[in-house]
Amino acid sequence: MSRLVPSSLALVCAFVAAAAAAAAPTRIPDAAVSTATALRDRALHDDTAWNVTESLTTEVGPRLAGSDNDLRAREWAIAKFKALGFDKVYTEPVTFPKWVRRSEHAAIVAPFPQPLAVTALGYSPGTPAGGLTGEVMLFPTLDALKAAGDAVRGKIVYVGFRMQPHQDGHDYGMGSTVRTHGPALAAKLGAAAFLLRSAGTDSNRTPHTGVTQWEADGPRIPAAALSAPDADLLEHMAARGKPVQLKLDLDCGMDGTYTSANVIGEITGRRHPGQVVAIGGHLDSWDPGTGAIDDAAGVAIAMAAGHLIGELPQRPDRTIRVIAFANEEQGLFGGRAYAEAHAKQVGKHQLGSESDFGAGKVWRMSASVKPEARGAIQQIADVLAPIGVAYDAQRPGGGGSDLSQMHAKGMAALSLTQDGTRYFDWHHTGNDTLDKIDRDELNQNVAVYAAFAYMAAQAKGDFGSAPGAFAHDGAGD
Amino acid sequence: MSRLVPSSLALVCAFVAAAAAAAAPTRIPDAAVSTATALRDRALHDDTAWNVTESLTTEVGPRLAGSDNDLRAREWAIAKFKALGFDKVYTEPVTFPKWVRRSEHAAIVAPFPQPLAVTALGYSPGTPAGGLTGEVMLFPTLDALKAAGDAVRGKIVYVGFRMQPHQDGHDYGMGSTVRTHGPALAAKLGAAAFLLRSAGTDSNRTPHTGVTQWEADGPRIPAAALSAPDADLLEHMAARGKPVQLKLDLDCGMDGTYTSANVIGEITGRRHPGQVVAIGGHLDSWDPGTGAIDDAAGVAIAMAAGHLIGELPQRPDRTIRVIAFANEEQGLFGGRAYAEAHAKQVGKHQLGSESDFGAGKVWRMSASVKPEARGAIQQIADVLAPIGVAYDAQRPGGGGSDLSQMHAKGMAALSLTQDGTRYFDWHHTGNDTLDKIDRDELNQNVAVYAAFAYMAAQAKGDFGSAPGAFAHDGAGD
Repeated sequence: MSRLVPSSLALVCAFVAAAAAAAAPTRIPDAAVSTATALRDRALHDDTAWNVTESLTTEVGPRLAGSDNDLRAREWAIAKFKALGFDKVYTEPVTFPKWVRRSEHAAIVAPFPQPLAVTALGYSPGTPAGGLTGEVMLFPTLDALKAAGDAVRGKIVYVGFRMQPHQDGHDYGMGSTVRTHGPALAAKLGAAAFLLRSAGTDSNRTPHTGVTQWEADGPRIPAAALSAPDADLLEHMAARGKPVQLKLDLDCGMDGTYTSANVIGEITGRRHPGQVVAIGGHLDSWDPGTGAIDDAAGVAIAMAAGHLIGELPQRPDRTIRVIAFANEEQGLFGGRAYAEAHAKQVGKHQLGSESDFGAGKVWRMSASVKPEARGAIQQIADVLAPIGVAYDAQRPGGGGSDLSQMHAKGMAALSLTQDGTRYFDWHHTGNDTLDKIDRDELNQNVAVYAAFAYMAAQAKGDFGSAPGAFAHDGAGD
Repeated sequence: MSRLVPSSLALVCAFVAAAAAAAAPTRIPDAAVSTATALRDRALHDDTAWNVTESLTTEVGPRLAGSDNDLRAREWAIAKFKALGFDKVYTEPVTFPKWVRRSEHAAIVAPFPQPLAVTALGYSPGTPAGGLTGEVMLFPTLDALKAAGDAVRGKIVYVGFRMQPHQDGHDYGMGSTVRTHGPALAAKLGAAAFLLRSAGTDSNRTPHTGVTQWEADGPRIPAAALSAPDADLLEHMAARGKPVQLKLDLDCGMDGTYTSANVIGEITGRRHPGQVVAIGGHLDSWDPGTGAIDDAAGVAIAMAAGHLIGELPQRPDRTIRVIAFANEEQGLFGGRAYAEAHAKQVGKHQLGSESDFGAGKVWRMSASVKPEARGAIQQIADVLAPIGVAYDAQRPGGGGSDLSQMHAKGMAALSLTQDGTRYFDWHHTGNDTLDKIDRDELNQNVAVYAAFAYMAAQAKGDFGSAPGAFAHDGAGD
């Protein structure tokens, strides 16, 4: 036992130390708060994020995952990280099914022939060569479609949910559900094709694409979105009570698998290089526009924040890791690959947040962190409050789209919620172009990311990242 | 001489009578003012114009002059006039060169390949099959292009004038000049093709078409418009200082001549059926949209005004003639044909005004009438003032687009100026669709047209129409 006593004592001491460490509040030193405040103010007048966004949209443009531009975008990102002075630039592979879009047309053929502005949904199969013609059955909601059952067999199903604009974009919950779940439901009911009123809030002749989801062994049918004015037209025509015949001609479909990569740039920490603050955006985009708000802006915000921290007289204590994720659009492939590859280092992720909701101002911050880190989050909130960010201590933080996957593994995370009032006017359409971005609003985002990332990197203590740490916080962006 | 005396006396008497008639002020009887006021108020809550606009855009849609829909639109108009209770419905032929659009594509091929949203201008020839590739030379204005001279030989010329929105839409003066005159100028300088930043005020990926003009024996080159975001992209790329290579592939061009028709509906006057108040809009449209604001709305406003007058207990004293003009867009063909056909009856045209600037509220009225009719115009103005129409007694009235041709022959005319602040966001684009029209604003237009047309029809006296009467008033819309 004599031998046991010291051993037990050591265990007890270790336990007490751990408990003390756990109980010790995480704190951001005054000097770091001061530097973060200066970073914030500098970011408000720095052109980096605008220039990065302009560069990616001009020099690469549309970046459909798996397309030729997927590779061009990665080459661009590697070069841009290097040009911005990042210490370490590398890639990690991301493999996914490749979907291709070649052409898409639709028209009403009876009773009143009219062309329609249409775009295929990601993962839609094509129609037979020469197109598919059928009678349209219209439904206001997915529930109404469900209730119709067998009646839709052989028909072209249309679901006409209308999204309204909101600051937090919450109507996209239902709008995107119609897009992701409607086609599989219609296919199971025996429909010939599926159309929806675009999941968007605009009234432009620019339909909104986006991915749909199929069951692994379920049936698949051509699926596409009409622009809002075209949806109106179809509804007006159908209201006359005569059968409406529509022709859909989509040349698109799956084409094997493709290996892309997350592109990562780091400002290496001087004290704890293995501990990282993870920020980022996604490098891929949908193809009708140049992917400016979705998500060149997010990549640019994170790159600019890392760059500004890298321009400080000395490196931060911990590493700032900026991740330009591959293929977010078709199912968080980049985020999932990152989370799998880094699952064992979840405890090394100090704090994380991704920008993927355009370039509108950040108006709200929330966090999923351990209780002892709430004081440090309040310190971050105090630096961000003067630039319009309200801290909601009741809401969890989800980490953003791709980083939600790392958060699910136990990474402490923020949600830095952007104003999305106009986001769904342009999202996934040809209108997602550089002119939709306001420089001042973009810079406010950089200020938020630079300040929070720097403070997290300098914190005395951690934010609670550990395997499975936030399994029950109900976070989501 | 004895025989001369009575004869001279007769002449003198005739002269005195004519002078007295000329000097007698035209006046609208109190009962007519009262009826017009009631018509105005009824129009504000009447659905006719909305229903007519919905019908034309839904049941016919795009109405490119000379296309299959040109005929469908005429059949629609004849049926609609009859359904609305017009007494007499007939057509008058309008012949013009036929231009056809089959397909249009453009892309930057170097240094950074990107697709571009483009639309061919009316009367543009096509490119060689397979497209035309060349280096782009950018100019901010037509003057800068002129100054470049020979340097543009073999190049694709781009002119990037930016229109700003205004209530009176005055930037379209320069914007449309770039479109109408730029291609011919570039062709004379030896350019291979011509592109412009769309003559529009939006930032949508929906380029603005419209007609261009060639000299009869001058050279012609492919000519097209880029959407504003695409123009931005081209300018951003060119700003890097490397040559920009662009490929333009237009399949379009002239295809013989076509005979369409003005479609005319009349509410026949009970006292002076041969004297007409002429109102209207144009039935043709450009093809990317459904021609809702340009100019289903104008046709609907005039049809609804005539219909409401036709629903009064008795027919007006003079005839209300509603004209749905053919092919306004490619050069006022309908208006010119009408003016030629009716030149001898110019004196029978009591007053005229066409609606062709969308569906925004009428905010200003001006008139070209004889001095003795100014009091009657003031009476009209007094009825319109309560619904937001300001009378500008200093400005001439031009009669609107097609009816400007009849005004040029001597028809007394009004200008009923609509709010065009948003008109050039949608004009000549895919976005010219029904959803852009506000019902209340549309109805305010009907109220204006119904009230003025009725008062003109009931006036005691005329407004000065006579051959050549307003040759020097400088009117224009």
